[in-house]
Amino acid sequence: MSKAQKFKALRGFRDFPPEDLGLREHLFTVWRRVARRYGFQEYDGPPLEELALYTEKSGDEIVGQLYNFQDKGGREVALRPEMTPSLARILSHRSRSLPKPIRWYSIPQLFRYERAQRGRLREHFQWNVDLMGEEGVEADAEVLAVALDALRELGLEAEDIRARVSDRRLLAALLRSAGVPEDRLVTAYTIVDKVEREGRDRILDRLEKEVGLDREAGEQILSLFDSPGLDGVRAAYGSDPEVQGALREVEAFMTVMEELGLGDFLEFDLTIVRGLAYYTGIVFEIFDRKGEFRAICGGGRYDALLERVGGDPLPAVGFGMGDVVVGEILKERKLAPEYAREVDVFIVSIGDELRPLARRLARSLRDRGRSVTTPLRSLSVRKQFQAASAEGAREVLVLGPEELARGAVVVRTMTDGTEREVPLRELAPELQVPDLAGA
Amino acid sequence: MSKAQKFKALRGFRDFPPEDLGLREHLFTVWRRVARRYGFQEYDGPPLEELALYTEKSGDEIVGQLYNFQDKGGREVALRPEMTPSLARILSHRSRSLPKPIRWYSIPQLFRYERAQRGRLREHFQWNVDLMGEEGVEADAEVLAVALDALRELGLEAEDIRARVSDRRLLAALLRSAGVPEDRLVTAYTIVDKVEREGRDRILDRLEKEVGLDREAGEQILSLFDSPGLDGVRAAYGSDPEVQGALREVEAFMTVMEELGLGDFLEFDLTIVRGLAYYTGIVFEIFDRKGEFRAICGGGRYDALLERVGGDPLPAVGFGMGDVVVGEILKERKLAPEYAREVDVFIVSIGDELRPLARRLARSLRDRGRSVTTPLRSLSVRKQFQAASAEGAREVLVLGPEELARGAVVVRTMTDGTEREVPLRELAPELQVPDLAGA
Repeated sequence: MSKAQKFKALRGFRDFPPEDLGLREHLFTVWRRVARRYGFQEYDGPPLEELALYTEKSGDEIVGQLYNFQDKGGREVALRPEMTPSLARILSHRSRSLPKPIRWYSIPQLFRYERAQRGRLREHFQWNVDLMGEEGVEADAEVLAVALDALRELGLEAEDIRARVSDRRLLAALLRSAGVPEDRLVTAYTIVDKVEREGRDRILDRLEKEVGLDREAGEQILSLFDSPGLDGVRAAYGSDPEVQGALREVEAFMTVMEELGLGDFLEFDLTIVRGLAYYTGIVFEIFDRKGEFRAICGGGRYDALLERVGGDPLPAVGFGMGDVVVGEILKERKLAPEYAREVDVFIVSIGDELRPLARRLARSLRDRGRSVTTPLRSLSVRKQFQAASAEGAREVLVLGPEELARGAVVVRTMTDGTEREVPLRELAPELQVPDLAGA
Repeated sequence: MSKAQKFKALRGFRDFPPEDLGLREHLFTVWRRVARRYGFQEYDGPPLEELALYTEKSGDEIVGQLYNFQDKGGREVALRPEMTPSLARILSHRSRSLPKPIRWYSIPQLFRYERAQRGRLREHFQWNVDLMGEEGVEADAEVLAVALDALRELGLEAEDIRARVSDRRLLAALLRSAGVPEDRLVTAYTIVDKVEREGRDRILDRLEKEVGLDREAGEQILSLFDSPGLDGVRAAYGSDPEVQGALREVEAFMTVMEELGLGDFLEFDLTIVRGLAYYTGIVFEIFDRKGEFRAICGGGRYDALLERVGGDPLPAVGFGMGDVVVGEILKERKLAPEYAREVDVFIVSIGDELRPLARRLARSLRDRGRSVTTPLRSLSVRKQFQAASAEGAREVLVLGPEELARGAVVVRTMTDGTEREVPLRELAPELQVPDLAGA
């Protein structure tokens, strides 16, 4: 074997040495804290699942983006690219017996095989929050509130981020009202979803050819995408009863968000289509206001999906928030925690005969919940203090024969260099002061 | 697509619905807390690595036990079966610049393809704790202390568990002293490692045939395995200088463990060989004293391994503790946390016109860190109280028109059913009491 051979992480996969894990843990801690505040419970599933669990939901085309293979027992398996199919599977055995609404969250690591691109990752962690068994917009609002409150807790306020909200039912009503036939609705979603990327003319062409919408009707639909807000929709289509009904739902959603104190974060924006066919109501995406980053979070209502992937029929609303974009924004805004190696106490022994006492004292302090290190070999006092600094000790306890003769220990606060004497029995009542004269 | 099709988790893989995740989180929380108490820092690596990272350390035979495959870019990759190769890889780029000792831990999920056996898992979570850059037995003792303190923190004391400790250098010295030639030492380790499973005669036969140890010398070695403790070793081989040196190391280790307050957990036991060829010093395994479960934890010193798998040469000592056996023991001893759905506060509204206030109050309480739920649709008061019970609310706040007319809210403690009135401004000073007369 060649000792010189050096390995690297696979391209698109991250290592998390302590200085990088700190930010990830900060995100996970805030995500968990906020989810619990809303009464959500954590679950998890396996990172490896049957391949069919994903093709059932997304069709065979998804296989090209998966880490899939045949295991040694001949099963077709895949690393999970998303969590919802596992959620449906886990719930399918138990959701009937659970009181509704079911509030669950998870922080899975997800995997997608993407053609190598600079900086493009093939794994990320995604906070998945889902509320199941409740149909109304109050549930939708609660779920978006969880996402926004987590971002607030991370330091991002309404001047930093915005949630762009639309409603699949409203878009459907508008498209129907403009003359799109029922069997072309999904095609129309995917076309208007591209309004920001493709030219206006190309969109109008496609609406004409693929959906059968004449130029004038197409123009009218597209004009709604130009100015956010509900006023344009009301003006153009407000007399259509289906549009009226859908508008009431969106307005009710907005009112609940106001009551939850989050109105400032919201913008109604029809261009938020979220191409995926399975959304059935409110849809949303959260962005930084400057538009420097990709979407922070996306979600919405998907009432038919759980049943479709083999679960019980349950109305549901949820979102996914990845660790990568949020992490980038926090770093850019100087909101990421600074990495520092830290320990509460480092114990210095003046003379090797005091090292056993140092270990006993370390044990006592650790049993009281403090983090403590001591040198693991004989070191000069100078080197012990260097080690204390390198380990980021906040306090150094110095065990010296003179002070111990008085039953005392010197406590040095490392930030300001101040020192004071403290009785050993105060630090650790169960320890005997050693008889140094007898040593 | 067939709606009736139900998926299951792959055999050997676990789902973690909230009632099962609680125990896992309890383990992780204690593991992290205790590691930090000793100044260890958390790291992580990717679950998918180059296959060669594992064959480099363990030879091609390991491939039969791996989840390995070729990815879409033609790379041979594998789900990680253990953490040490990733640790060596991550450290190889940075260990020279890190102050020593390096204290790192991780809680990776690990994967092994094992032929289907009842109850045998193909994944588990393993707490990996490693201390690098320090050669002496004080480092070995500190690492074993981390493992034992975590088990103490989980409720297992010296009457429940024991750490069986041996030393690879002592065993080598004994085998050499008995006449085992240098090039047969590793073979001899693997033979005596089986002394508890294979018959005595078979072990003696193998020592004779495979290692060249005559019957008498073989008997003398095996007699050391019959009675734990160092006395037998001293009596039979104490005059051998190499054995003397190795004995002093073991005794020093035991003394440090006493000073760390953990002497009661220890047993010297030569039969703890840990077959793996890479151990170079102290080795240990932790078991429940009744012997009902498999090993809880195993580890030891492996001074040459990091270099061998492509890292910098660094002396190292570490252990792995899996979540499965510990979880089984905690359940059997009734030490596992009881699962309960819980929320601090559930807000009941008497009359739908108070539901907006309920949401505002929920927001205020959540901003103060409390977990709060409210109904997401109009419900009768009776159903609201049922929901509060189902969600495990500790307190119910009742918003009623009469009390609010006095600026007050009823707070009901669910454990004892007691009720008291509290001014709304005390719960949430920023909220306006609504003008109910005007509604």
